[in-house]
Formats: sequence, structure tokens, C-alpha cells
Amino acid sequence: MMSETIKAPILYEQVAQKLEQLIRSGTLRPGDRLPSVRRASEQNGVSVTTAVQAYLSLENLGLVEARPKSGFYVRSQFRERVMEPTTSRPTATITSVGVGSLASRMFDAAGMPDVTPFGAATPSPELLPVTKLNRIMAAVARRAGARSISYDSLGGAEPLRRQIARRSLDWGTNLSPNDIITTCGGTEALALCLRAVAKAGDIVAVESPTYFGVLQMIEEQGLRALEIPMHAREGMDLDALERVVKSRRIAACLAVPNFNNPLGSLMSDDNKRRLVEILAAREVPLIEDDIYGDLFFGGHRPRVAQSYDKHGLVMLCGSFSKTLAPGYRVGWTAPGRFIEKVKNLKLTGTLAAATLPQLAVADFVANGGYDHYLRAIRQTYARQVETFSHAVADSFPGEIKISRPAGGFVIWIELPKNVSALKLHELALAEKISIAPGPMFSPKQSFPNFIRLNCGHPWSSRAERAIGVLSYLVKKMM
Amino acid sequence: MMSETIKAPILYEQVAQKLEQLIRSGTLRPGDRLPSVRRASEQNGVSVTTAVQAYLSLENLGLVEARPKSGFYVRSQFRERVMEPTTSRPTATITSVGVGSLASRMFDAAGMPDVTPFGAATPSPELLPVTKLNRIMAAVARRAGARSISYDSLGGAEPLRRQIARRSLDWGTNLSPNDIITTCGGTEALALCLRAVAKAGDIVAVESPTYFGVLQMIEEQGLRALEIPMHAREGMDLDALERVVKSRRIAACLAVPNFNNPLGSLMSDDNKRRLVEILAAREVPLIEDDIYGDLFFGGHRPRVAQSYDKHGLVMLCGSFSKTLAPGYRVGWTAPGRFIEKVKNLKLTGTLAAATLPQLAVADFVANGGYDHYLRAIRQTYARQVETFSHAVADSFPGEIKISRPAGGFVIWIELPKNVSALKLHELALAEKISIAPGPMFSPKQSFPNFIRLNCGHPWSSRAERAIGVLSYLVKKMM
Repeated sequence: MMSETIKAPILYEQVAQKLEQLIRSGTLRPGDRLPSVRRASEQNGVSVTTAVQAYLSLENLGLVEARPKSGFYVRSQFRERVMEPTTSRPTATITSVGVGSLASRMFDAAGMPDVTPFGAATPSPELLPVTKLNRIMAAVARRAGARSISYDSLGGAEPLRRQIARRSLDWGTNLSPNDIITTCGGTEALALCLRAVAKAGDIVAVESPTYFGVLQMIEEQGLRALEIPMHAREGMDLDALERVVKSRRIAACLAVPNFNNPLGSLMSDDNKRRLVEILAAREVPLIEDDIYGDLFFGGHRPRVAQSYDKHGLVMLCGSFSKTLAPGYRVGWTAPGRFIEKVKNLKLTGTLAAATLPQLAVADFVANGGYDHYLRAIRQTYARQVETFSHAVADSFPGEIKISRPAGGFVIWIELPKNVSALKLHELALAEKISIAPGPMFSPKQSFPNFIRLNCGHPWSSRAERAIGVLSYLVKKMM
Repeated sequence: MMSETIKAPILYEQVAQKLEQLIRSGTLRPGDRLPSVRRASEQNGVSVTTAVQAYLSLENLGLVEARPKSGFYVRSQFRERVMEPTTSRPTATITSVGVGSLASRMFDAAGMPDVTPFGAATPSPELLPVTKLNRIMAAVARRAGARSISYDSLGGAEPLRRQIARRSLDWGTNLSPNDIITTCGGTEALALCLRAVAKAGDIVAVESPTYFGVLQMIEEQGLRALEIPMHAREGMDLDALERVVKSRRIAACLAVPNFNNPLGSLMSDDNKRRLVEILAAREVPLIEDDIYGDLFFGGHRPRVAQSYDKHGLVMLCGSFSKTLAPGYRVGWTAPGRFIEKVKNLKLTGTLAAATLPQLAVADFVANGGYDHYLRAIRQTYARQVETFSHAVADSFPGEIKISRPAGGFVIWIELPKNVSALKLHELALAEKISIAPGPMFSPKQSFPNFIRLNCGHPWSSRAERAIGVLSYLVKKMM
């Protein structure tokens, strides 16, 4: 909360916004060279550093690109050519989830080196700081002694909780280490929070579309999902949520305000506040999944909805799996007033997460390595999302729509009406290309003609060819 | 299965049995020196090595002790003085479990350096191969590369599954790596198996007494526990189980044939076979908890009940937490015909366990370090159990009974009838001594005057004093 107040107004953002307007209005057009940074610094009366920051943030947004020894250029704007998916309009019926075995098939495909990994939302190992992190792990293992080998406390490794608490200032909240429980990945965090507040038969409000893993959890726990419409850019339709909350007993609402998977939507701060208030009015807990929060493309770390919570009703969940090391299984939750319940569930679910990976991540965060890495990887993902989007826009036939994620590394594509995403998934897998078909993202298996593509792997000629095969398959199916 | 058939009859066991009879019959009495190994080899017509093996196995049983440069002596036999707890006789009613917050309190106490750790059943970090294992972890981390950091497959790290499969020959079964799923400790293995076969409201047959963690799981999952009587030495009363299975619908039976916690009982092979058959006759799955199986005090690794399974109905669960490294969180299950269901539950519960700890354990097992360590630690635990038992027998007032564990590192003590174990727990904790009160081990909170003592920590003057304080408190309460 504090850091935000202190930072604003930020000079480089003002400069960036001015340039963005020039681009959006068409004053600067695709292929145009931007003024040199020195010139921009003179024009705007700011330092060269500030001008560079402005250009980098435009690059993060995918609006401009740097060309070595030449300067910054406006990128070709597929935004002008390809529409975004419209607001989803699920019918307001309650559904017993039935996602099936697609997820485990996709998860397995992600581990096969000969399959093009557009399916599971996993970052590429090539992009992860493998060597650095493993070196830290080795050092931590050598010096941790008995601590590494004994059961950890129920809350989890204290050094890690301290680092998470410290970072939470950047999200507009101010957690203490004792507010936090570490978990075996973000998956366990979400599963525990759901279990803590909902029991078999209860209704959980979810985003539509939403991450299928959450839908599977809901199914496994005997809960029922109620889908709330989503705007592709701004997230949950709060009027729809308010109507639902007023008319039914909802046990919990599960939302991803920062970069919904698959849409990449980003809820505004005002909407986050309203989301929290709508739910608090009926004492409905909000399970806030923020595992993509650190992967923003914009100028600053978005707040979490929990920062507006006055009643301990928001259960915030995070993880280092999307940013750092899926295989380390380091996640966490700050479950507000439900913390004792969540602790007890952890006790009977897994007892504790492995200690050493937690200590290694804590070390990497504490020594600044994590932030350093994030600064680079955010630009990389923004660029990759842009590249994938361009490639799809250029090659897919018919009227398609592509999401404009504000963070993360997946895109959501609406194919022509008569194309079956499930069928496309089958045909693509036969060609050793894994994709995530739209019906997985809805308990009612809506989105029959949508697919999600993982852009977490560097663009390559293999990716290029796979896009070619996909576009061919789509064309055949039209 | 094979290894057992080939081994029997084992010479040193015959020799040991002969000597044991001499001790039990009083021919050799406490303090008597045993024949030298050379003499024993001549007397029995066996090699010196075999005679040494025989003496070591008697030492494992706590019957004799080696005195440096002097030879083997018969230990003072508290077995003659102190009785074992009798067969438990729970009333055959079904109970919704309500163990409360004792468990998390005890778990937290285990992490406090100023509390004498007789409560939680944890091995002492001093006894664990901390340095070796952490060194392996460091080496594995340095060479594992991207594999360490990416999501593992749903089954878990293949090198570890291969090692477990290889070891399973010693338990009379013959698992393949694909039969096995690794988990975040034995806790997750048990929780997943329970979830896979029982749904809210279902009845699960459990041992009485049994590990409270299991009772908490049953409570959290909305299941009901039905307690089966236990013989203190031989485990579950199978006649009682058979009556129950014939008269009610049981969703699952959860048993610890090898070294029930808290009794340390060991079921005979015949009874294991019968246990499996009784349940198979009604298609009731058996969840077999074998986390203590490697910590036997006798001459060989006991079989698992799963070795008699013909229908894929036995779900075997194991872990390295009791033997090697609680904080590594490496457990596993071989859940028979329910493997796909268990995999799906893992997908929505934790997704995967941390990769590096699994690879480190696999390495330690593969290079022989684990077996080497086990050989030493089994003797240590047998000796500690004996020492603790003696100390309790010597100092506790009134008529007490102490279990005779055949493996593991806990003892179960029956105090005089009017002593409240819960009250003793309170008073002891105020004196910074953690113990596990009997009522935790039963959903009906039976065993009001029983306690479990953890003997996983080396005997010390602190332990000696704590036993003194406990006996004083018991005396005050009589």
C-alpha cells in the first residue's frame, strides 16, 4: 500500500503514456522509429534514465521493439487487425464439474520432449534460473544441517514466510510472517483454502473461463461451480457477481484478479475493491489466486484484492511455480481469519512442504536474485506473448479473436464458430502438438471453439511450424 | 517373497532362538555372561560369523548387551516384572472422530528446542544421516539441471520409484515403478488413498489404538471410524474384524501390520494373509501403512500384507520420514487397482512433490547408503526402546504396563486406572515435557490412562530427569 502511494506520480510512466497515445492515435505508425532516448529526455524534460525506463515499459506492453544499434521502433499492431474475445456469457446455472482426464493427459504431454508444449501453462526450463537456483540449493543443503531434515513447523519455513511478508508491501498489503502458511505449490494452497470454507454440495462462484485445475478441485471436493461472466480485458463482471451473491448462498468465490488464466485479464483497483465489498456484504470468502501477479507487463506490480479486505475474508494464494521453479513445489497462502482451519487441513493433508526448496527460494529472494530475474523475464514473456499472437493472427484462417493479456504467458484464442477445440486438440496431439481446448476451462464445457496457447517457451522454428500445422488443421475443420 | 523362501532356515536365527529360550526360561539370568562367540560357534557347529549374527539379533531384541572387551551379558529383564497392555476392547460403535487440537500442539512442541520431545513420533536429528544426505542433495542439485526445476511427472521421480520397486522384493511383493506414486510424505499417501475409496459418511475400520493423524484425516474427510481391538503384540483382532466386515458396509480398512503406532505390534504372516482374505471376501480395500516397516528389531524385514493381495485391493503406503528425513517430505503409495483415482487426486491436491528431495533419496538408496544406515539405526532404536522401557519400569509408581514393540521407536504405557493421561499431558507440558496422551489414539478418546513415549531421541540426562518428573507427576495423581 505504502510503496504505491510513495511512487506515484512516476515520471517514466507519464512519458510512456504520452508516447503510447501517439502510437494508439496513429501519429506514430508501425515501423516508425521513436525519437532517440536522448532526444526524448530533452523533449520531456526528464533524465535519460527515465526516458529509457519509459521505452522499456512500452516494450513490455508490446508496443515498441528495440533493434540493436538502431533504436526503438513501433511494432506492427495486430491489435488493429484482430479483435479480442467478447465478454463471456455463461448461463447462470450451477454445474457439477466434469472436466475429465484431459488435464492429466496435458500434464503428461508437458513432460515429453518430442511434444510441442503449447498445452500446459508452464514456463520453459530454458528461461528459468536453473543454474543459479540449484547452486543456491546446493549451498543451502550444505549449511542447513539438521534443520533441513527435520519436520518444519506447521506454518512452514520461517525465512521464506519473512520474505513473502516483505514483498507483500508491493501488493498494497502488509502481511506478517505469521499470516502465511507455506504449501506444496499453489495447488495445495488453493485446495486447502477451498476445503476450509466449502463442504460437499456447496456452491463456489468461479470465473468463466477459469483454470481447469480449479474446476477439477471443485469436482473432487464434491462442490458445485457457478460461472461468472468475464470481460476479456477487465476480468470478472461484478454486476453479474452481485446479482448471484444476492440471490443464492455462495460458499466462496474463487478469482484471479491479476491475469486470469486463460484470459490474462487485469482487474482495476476500483474493481478489486468492489469485488471485496460485494462479497463481504454477505460474508462470502474470496479465494484470491495471485500466482501470476509478479508477471505483469505494465509499469508496476498490481495490487491484490486482499489489500482492500477489512474482515479477514480474503484468502490470498501465491506460488513460485509460475515464476521460478515448478519442481521446487513452493507455494503459500495468507488465508485471513481461516488460518487455523487451513493449518489443520495442512496437518492432515501433507503435514509440511519440503524444507530445503523453501530455504533455497527464500535465499534467492533475500539476495535480490528473484527481483533481478523477474525484471528480465517479464519483458521476455511480454515479447513472447506478442510474437505468438502475431503468428496466430498472421496464419490462422477465418475470423479469429485473440486475448490481450496484461501479464502471464498464455493467450486465449476464439476460433471460427464451427471449429471444435476438442477435435483440434486430438488432431494436434497426433501431430505431437499439445494445446489446451476451451471446454476444459468451463464446468459446462463452454468455449467449444476456444483454445489456450502457452507462450512460456521461447519462440522457435519448431513453434513456428507447430503454428503452421495448427492453422492447417483449423482450416481443414472449417 | 523370493528372498524369504531362499533365506529360511537361517542358521543364526536358530542359534539365537536357542539362546533366547535359555534366557526366557531363567537358565541364563540377568547379569550372566553369555558364552564367547568362539565357544558358541563350537557349541552349535556354526561359523563364528553366524554366532556373532545370533548375538547381535539378541541384542536387537534387547535381551543381551555387549560390554566392551568383555563379551555379551544378559540384560535385566523388565519383561519379567512389567506386564504388557492387554488386548484393547473398544465397544463396536461407530464414531465421528474428534481428536481436537492436541496434535498440532504436539507437532509444534516437537520443534521447540527447550521441550523434551517424548510427544511426536519423530526420530532425533542427531541420529539421522543429515550430513551425508545433505551432501547428496547438494550434489544432485548441482547436476540435475532443468529436471530439478520443472514439474515432475504425475507418478513422481522415476529414479526413486525404481529404487522403491527394487526394495519391494524384500517385503514379499514385486512392484514395478509404474505401480508407485510418490507423495509429499506418508501423510499425503494415506490421505489420497482414503479419499480414493471412501466418501463423506462412509465407515473406515481402524486399529484401536491407532495413530491420531489418521483419525484426524478421517474426521476432516467427514468419514466415521470403527475401532477394531488390537492385541498388544500381534496386532489387529481378526475375528473381530471379520464380524464387523460381515455385519456392516465398510468403505476401507486402515491398518499398520508392521509396528502399529503406538503399540509396535507385528502381525504374523499368516494373519497378514488372513487380513487380506477377510477384506477381499467383501471387496473392502485395505490401506496398509508401512512407514515403520524398515525399522524392525527382529532378524529380517517383515513382509507387507500387500504381498498376499490377489485383487489389487491393498493400497500400500510408505515413506522415508521415519527412517531418513522427515523434512524431505518423500513418501509414496502403491495403491493397486485404485492408481488412476489416486493420481487424479494428487493432481488436484498438490500436483507433484518436490523433485530434488526425491532424487537425493533415490541416490542414497541406490548407492547402498540407506541400507547401511538402517542396519545401524535399527540396533540404536531397539536399544533406546529398551532403555526407555527400563527407566519407566524402574521409576513409575503403581501397576503399570509397557508395550514390547517389535520395531519402530515408540512405547505405549498403561498407567494406573485413575491417572488421567490428558491431565498428565497438561502438567508435563508445563514442565516442558511433551508426551502423547492415550485419548488421542482413539476416536472415542478411549485409553484415558495410557500414554505414548517417543524413544526416537538418544537417552540422555535430560531424558532421565524428564522420566523422573513424569513419574513424580503420575504419583501425585494417583
